[in-house]
Amino acid sequence: MRFFMIYLDNASTTKPSAAAVAAVTDALEHFGNPSSLHGLGLDGEKIIEKSRAAVAKALGTDKKSIYFTSGGTEANNLAIFGSAHALKKRGNRIITSAIEHPSVLESFRALEKDGFEVVYIGADKNGVIRLDELKSVVDENTILVSVMTVNNETGVIQPVREIGEITHKAAPAAVFHTDAVQAFGKMNCAPRLTGADLISVSSHKIHGPKGAGAVYIGAGKPYPIIFGGSQQGGVRPGTENVPGIAGFGAAASEKQGSCEDLYDILKKEILDGIPDVKINGDEKFAGKYVLNVSFLGIKAEVLLHTLERYGIYVSTGSACSSHKPEPSHVLTAMGLTHREIEGAVRFSFDDSLSAADMEETADVLKKEVADLRRYMRR
Amino acid sequence: MRFFMIYLDNASTTKPSAAAVAAVTDALEHFGNPSSLHGLGLDGEKIIEKSRAAVAKALGTDKKSIYFTSGGTEANNLAIFGSAHALKKRGNRIITSAIEHPSVLESFRALEKDGFEVVYIGADKNGVIRLDELKSVVDENTILVSVMTVNNETGVIQPVREIGEITHKAAPAAVFHTDAVQAFGKMNCAPRLTGADLISVSSHKIHGPKGAGAVYIGAGKPYPIIFGGSQQGGVRPGTENVPGIAGFGAAASEKQGSCEDLYDILKKEILDGIPDVKINGDEKFAGKYVLNVSFLGIKAEVLLHTLERYGIYVSTGSACSSHKPEPSHVLTAMGLTHREIEGAVRFSFDDSLSAADMEETADVLKKEVADLRRYMRR
Repeated sequence: MRFFMIYLDNASTTKPSAAAVAAVTDALEHFGNPSSLHGLGLDGEKIIEKSRAAVAKALGTDKKSIYFTSGGTEANNLAIFGSAHALKKRGNRIITSAIEHPSVLESFRALEKDGFEVVYIGADKNGVIRLDELKSVVDENTILVSVMTVNNETGVIQPVREIGEITHKAAPAAVFHTDAVQAFGKMNCAPRLTGADLISVSSHKIHGPKGAGAVYIGAGKPYPIIFGGSQQGGVRPGTENVPGIAGFGAAASEKQGSCEDLYDILKKEILDGIPDVKINGDEKFAGKYVLNVSFLGIKAEVLLHTLERYGIYVSTGSACSSHKPEPSHVLTAMGLTHREIEGAVRFSFDDSLSAADMEETADVLKKEVADLRRYMRR
Repeated sequence: MRFFMIYLDNASTTKPSAAAVAAVTDALEHFGNPSSLHGLGLDGEKIIEKSRAAVAKALGTDKKSIYFTSGGTEANNLAIFGSAHALKKRGNRIITSAIEHPSVLESFRALEKDGFEVVYIGADKNGVIRLDELKSVVDENTILVSVMTVNNETGVIQPVREIGEITHKAAPAAVFHTDAVQAFGKMNCAPRLTGADLISVSSHKIHGPKGAGAVYIGAGKPYPIIFGGSQQGGVRPGTENVPGIAGFGAAASEKQGSCEDLYDILKKEILDGIPDVKINGDEKFAGKYVLNVSFLGIKAEVLLHTLERYGIYVSTGSACSSHKPEPSHVLTAMGLTHREIEGAVRFSFDDSLSAADMEETADVLKKEVADLRRYMRR
């Protein structure tokens, strides 16, 4: 790894904190199987329960509603398949948005093949899902609505409170699930605030290790997606990832500071210093941990590798689909042109970055974007 | 943790090796998302591919057939649900044994509810599945046979090669899956030896960290059980557990020595020194990493806690079901009496233990079993 870097890809993954690393290491030493009856097993169980309490507290809920998974993808799958199968006798319609993470979208597509009626809500040019569309399709036959709290590509905050209200008013049988992977640790995601019945969170987006996530399940017992022993009440069997969960708990106990200043500085520098750019996602709805910018006439991947030469790490679209050459489904849903999507770069912050880092990033961008545009015009 | 201990619960979980711990720690430092296009992402991807090669080599196969999961339970689920759904147009019968791990049995029970015809093969008094029963039920309508390589409660090696032959001869459409979680790293599990089309393995049973496992998929692309991004060809999406996988790869690169001497010593000492005991699982079929003994007239859980006072850690039944008060389904299938099951203790070895450890364990057992029996007679 480089000695010096400006890591602006925190929406892809974060550097594990010192406390998270220490918790993982400690849990590797306390290696008993949490299901074992002896003291070494109990040590493992205590680590898990401490983390469960920490995640519950960070989410503003109680620990009995928290189930650990292998990550955000499995958390979304468990919430969606689990609810759909548990509630299928009460209705057949399930609703999500066009700007969800692939782990939500692909789960809905699989359920569509299984015979559920799936409705995909669109987004407006600001990157916010269309509440009017939602209102017109939530009905008594609806059993599940799943909309993310913060979009992973644009950082746009979705109106989850209103979505919860609309859902519960028009569809008494339905549960509201929100993928809060990009929101957790950064804003209040408490179920009593959002009305969410199920919430997915992930460790490695909040400076915990990869391999751990959790789902909050407010009421009812969902159908599991993995079957086995009696761990976690059978909702998620299998020997728990004790080191991963330990690190997740440690990370959840730490507060992520605001990145508003970093966002503001970088955005202003880019808007003031570089022509032909477009900010994707209206600032009114911005969580300010993500800044998505289209540099027109430039291929984002080329800019990404150029920035990397300076030790500046960014993303094109979202990391989980960046190996796919397809255009971003989120920016497409927002109505961006092909050229705008092609040049879209995601900068995602964390509070260890400084104003000087933003200025340095902006300086490099000004020079390199100009050079690339000159080169491409030749 | 106690300064001194004799850990005889290695079939529940193992202490991560120094190399595994170092690999986990290193991977927490190289924290890039393997799906990211920049160099930090590539670092993460390299760690995964190195581990994939190590696991493939230890399994005697090539790395393109190895898919990482969150552990053995998910590996078994992916193999079983994936195959059943991929092959359901070719037949409806799926076969397993009565002595499988809960992650296999519960997967079959779920498929039974979904309409598959499930046949459960019994076991004989030696703890070996009944090949004659298998032969009589494998037919052209059979699409999946799943039998473990080594039983987790008794350590008895199953005739996987014969099972593979019977399956492929009588059921051309079927795949043969083996849960090799207790065999991997201890004996040759190569697919060309066993004829297995799918093999499940787990990290934390071979001195790797918890939270990582893998499934070998010889041919065909199974239906995923978790949906999302394009990681691992879509067969198992979600950001990879890079630290867990790194530790798994490091552990898979190390060889586990034979525990035959430890097994022989402890068994002889118990048989020679303690009356009214029964060894469960015939030595002819013993993998010799597990010794299951019934101490008649004693409650295994009481003996477990008594041994713990000496820093000796054992298991009653299997850890993954030891929080359930139900009698072991494996020992029940072998025809043991209630009294034999109630007094059954599992000793499971690893090569860091010494002959002196076995003698000390035997000495404690001789004294405490006699004391407990005296106490219970009063």
